[in-house]
Amino acid sequence: MTTTAFDLKLTSEITVRPIQSVGGDHMVVAAAKVSTCGEDAEKFSDPSQSEGNAGLINYLMKFRHGTPFEHASMTFFVHAPIMVWREWHRHRIGFSYNEESARYKPLDPVFWIPRRDRRMVPVEGWKPGRPKFRTLDEAARAMARMEDESLYPTGPLDFSNAWYDRVIARKRRAYEAAYAAYREDIDDGIAMEVARSVLPVGIYSSCWVTTNPRALMAFLSLRTHEPDATFVSYPQAEIEEAARVCEQFLKAGWPLTHDAFVKNGRVGP
Amino acid sequence: MTTTAFDLKLTSEITVRPIQSVGGDHMVVAAAKVSTCGEDAEKFSDPSQSEGNAGLINYLMKFRHGTPFEHASMTFFVHAPIMVWREWHRHRIGFSYNEESARYKPLDPVFWIPRRDRRMVPVEGWKPGRPKFRTLDEAARAMARMEDESLYPTGPLDFSNAWYDRVIARKRRAYEAAYAAYREDIDDGIAMEVARSVLPVGIYSSCWVTTNPRALMAFLSLRTHEPDATFVSYPQAEIEEAARVCEQFLKAGWPLTHDAFVKNGRVGP
Amino acid sequence: MTTTAFDLKLTSEITVRPIQSVGGDHMVVAAAKVSTCGEDAEKFSDPSQSEGNAGLINYLMKFRHGTPFEHASMTFFVHAPIMVWREWHRHRIGFSYNEESARYKPLDPVFWIPRRDRRMVPVEGWKPGRPKFRTLDEAARAMARMEDESLYPTGPLDFSNAWYDRVIARKRRAYEAAYAAYREDIDDGIAMEVARSVLPVGIYSSCWVTTNPRALMAFLSLRTHEPDATFVSYPQAEIEEAARVCEQFLKAGWPLTHDAFVKNGRVGP
Amino acid sequence: MTTTAFDLKLTSEITVRPIQSVGGDHMVVAAAKVSTCGEDAEKFSDPSQSEGNAGLINYLMKFRHGTPFEHASMTFFVHAPIMVWREWHRHRIGFSYNEESARYKPLDPVFWIPRRDRRMVPVEGWKPGRPKFRTLDEAARAMARMEDESLYPTGPLDFSNAWYDRVIARKRRAYEAAYAAYREDIDDGIAMEVARSVLPVGIYSSCWVTTNPRALMAFLSLRTHEPDATFVSYPQAEIEEAARVCEQFLKAGWPLTHDAFVKNGRVGP
Repeated sequence: MTTTAFDLKLTSEITVRPIQSVGGDHMVVAAAKVSTCGEDAEKFSDPSQSEGNAGLINYLMKFRHGTPFEHASMTFFVHAPIMVWREWHRHRIGFSYNEESARYKPLDPVFWIPRRDRRMVPVEGWKPGRPKFRTLDEAARAMARMEDESLYPTGPLDFSNAWYDRVIARKRRAYEAAYAAYREDIDDGIAMEVARSVLPVGIYSSCWVTTNPRALMAFLSLRTHEPDATFVSYPQAEIEEAARVCEQFLKAGWPLTHDAFVKNGRVGP
Repeated sequence: MTTTAFDLKLTSEITVRPIQSVGGDHMVVAAAKVSTCGEDAEKFSDPSQSEGNAGLINYLMKFRHGTPFEHASMTFFVHAPIMVWREWHRHRIGFSYNEESARYKPLDPVFWIPRRDRRMVPVEGWKPGRPKFRTLDEAARAMARMEDESLYPTGPLDFSNAWYDRVIARKRRAYEAAYAAYREDIDDGIAMEVARSVLPVGIYSSCWVTTNPRALMAFLSLRTHEPDATFVSYPQAEIEEAARVCEQFLKAGWPLTHDAFVKNGRVGP
Repeated sequence: MTTTAFDLKLTSEITVRPIQSVGGDHMVVAAAKVSTCGEDAEKFSDPSQSEGNAGLINYLMKFRHGTPFEHASMTFFVHAPIMVWREWHRHRIGFSYNEESARYKPLDPVFWIPRRDRRMVPVEGWKPGRPKFRTLDEAARAMARMEDESLYPTGPLDFSNAWYDRVIARKRRAYEAAYAAYREDIDDGIAMEVARSVLPVGIYSSCWVTTNPRALMAFLSLRTHEPDATFVSYPQAEIEEAARVCEQFLKAGWPLTHDAFVKNGRVGP
Repeated sequence: MTTTAFDLKLTSEITVRPIQSVGGDHMVVAAAKVSTCGEDAEKFSDPSQSEGNAGLINYLMKFRHGTPFEHASMTFFVHAPIMVWREWHRHRIGFSYNEESARYKPLDPVFWIPRRDRRMVPVEGWKPGRPKFRTLDEAARAMARMEDESLYPTGPLDFSNAWYDRVIARKRRAYEAAYAAYREDIDDGIAMEVARSVLPVGIYSSCWVTTNPRALMAFLSLRTHEPDATFVSYPQAEIEEAARVCEQFLKAGWPLTHDAFVKNGRVGP
């Protein structure tokens, strides 16, 4: 039995790429106008006529009239670690998914590592649901000031470059060992669906995600952190990174909708 | 108090008009390919490449892999009597609606009447869930043959042209009386939401409906009657009429999908 | 052909009666604890232990952690006019319905009329989405003060008892005419599904409604009017009446949940 | 830095334990009767009266009247590897989840290994979507007969006990390495949400799952393999194991429903 050689790829990047979309602010306005104009609403679906509609869209957002934001569709290709999918797939309403299957195809050896400047050192007072972290450099400065001592019962930690290098080297070793075992299982004639059990949640997987502006705003509300939002959320940085890219596509295709979303405290309608 | 004059319009027509759509068979194929091809799936989303994909789409339909049929969107304008909306709005998953509001706008005096050739005379052996009807002419012939006697305890009925004229005249009178009362209520300064209580379920209302091919096939499966379908449904004729138009748009935009739906007994995936 | 006699019943009452339910605040707490306690969460599902859990439930509500409120079920029998069902059935997520079918059974001659003290006279400045009404007595006083003149282009209206009597008499006549036509259609041998087209949206229909606390709170947020709510809604009075009864059952079975809902501006989690 | 010692637990067991439920066949019958009996339907919700209702339930199943099966709720505690949750969480409609969070609590070192008699050696002719496997012993016999040669381009494999021992030992090493790296990351002061990236999808996680009989039947239809089912599914063995336990609870609480489900080709209504 010979183990297939492989090139491990470590990355921090989350890819979100638009595949197709339909709709726009003019359609939100027209759909809302059905309520008061019936069949004539369709004449509002001319994009060139939608100036001055910011007020209506703002009203819909503020008073939580959500259905006009559903007559649209956006499909994204997303490449992200499984730990991100674990969170994303919990969004059930207005989201459609088709993901790469580790039962039917071997996953590629692409693994996630944190960027050096990712906030990843817990701050004292951390609570489930509202985690707070420092960057490595912030943690080093805090350590120098002897803050958060209670977090380190076994003594102070050295949050230096060596710390980051050690974390990355450790992840690399763990990923390599896991992926080697995975390939050896496959070489040994074992089903991919059984071999995959050793693959870490840091491995990347591809998925198509289709949603609409209403469902996307609910997602953004929970998966982005804005201190000024009406309801502050504490998402994991990696799903937030993906969410922020999705938000740019919302902003590009539905600028009035996005503007009203932001102005109204990022509360989905 | 002067009652506003109005022109009653009687019609049997159900209008379904496409407003926008996105997607196609090539996107179904590409979404399905994510499972086995990951990022490379996107190259299958070229419409010109999708020949020969009938097999894959048929497989998805047959084995009920439904999610690839969700990466798409179709928005319809529909004009139908409230009794149709009462049924349509029960479809909760993958359907978005914005309907004319009788709280905010007076409804127009447009009312539904059955076409003369609508199947509308119950046949003996009729059961809840599986209603069976004859046309007026078929009923007249059956009556001549003294069939279904048990349906008419008070004696035989005269299913002639006079019968149809009487039914339509009766509906017209009822609709006129209701709409007149409605307008008088409004003229009397009463809220539209209270005035509307006398409006019949035969009055027309406009609605935007957005769905995707998967949800639409579930709708078609329940709202069209095909004796050869794997699961035979017994929808009311008016919602079936709307469903048949929607089905034509599915067929036009997703021909391989529609073909596989029909071949597989009209069971939604 | 003899028209069957019938006794018209006019009523303003909306009936909501509980049929079954399962769950409680202790289950909300236990479900939330799965996040941090895994298997041990179950020990929190002891109702007698749930004192002091108001804090956790309040936190879930405030930070919009909604899923712990889904591990429960409430089934109601509801008797309400079709115009109420038209609104209720638009709630798609977390709601299940089984309604009386006018295709399979003749509807009873029970019809809705407004109570004398229902707010039903529009106030100047009324807008779609935020309707404002006065009671009959308030309207009479406003008329005496010559307010809202612009609402009455054809001259002042007499909002006296005579006004209410006239409205009710008009509704009675319209309902009687409609129901008589309906029965005549049926006597004439026409299908119930065709005969029903003349039935008004003020006729009552029975329905079973099953939901969970999370979906119910979303419903309450939109279907009750509270001036102090974070997002003020303007529901029609009749669906609000039903919603208020449902809310009492939520309060009885999930008192901490209901309390947190109210304290947090009636925003569903 | 001292690495915390840990005891690795390897297991093949999937735990499904009921937490609460409400409903039963009598409620399915009563909900269906609302259609034809309105308010009187409730009298059918007496469990002692439900004998002879097998016919009605069978009819609902056969003609796909699904809503009567939604007025109920079942909550399960489930302990399963993440690779099972990855599949389960794709069921969006009628399913509620609260899962252990690796952001807020360290996961325990409990990992999945295949049972020796699990079908896990691919059979020639294997296709995505319809994987077929042999047990180790079956594979050994096939190898002795020189079957499926094309699957083994590098020569025959030795499907003996040594093979199984090697696979398990390999998984143990990979799991140990991953969990050690995880604990070292945490000891090094790194956030749990970052440390977890090396944890394999074979690690166990706890989750509460709430569903209703209709949604559960859709799940069973896709997540159990029955050669005689109308639509044959090819689920991974581990989610099927969980599904089979859920099915037993369905059978215990809704025996007529389960019986009709099985008789009608395991097609969810």
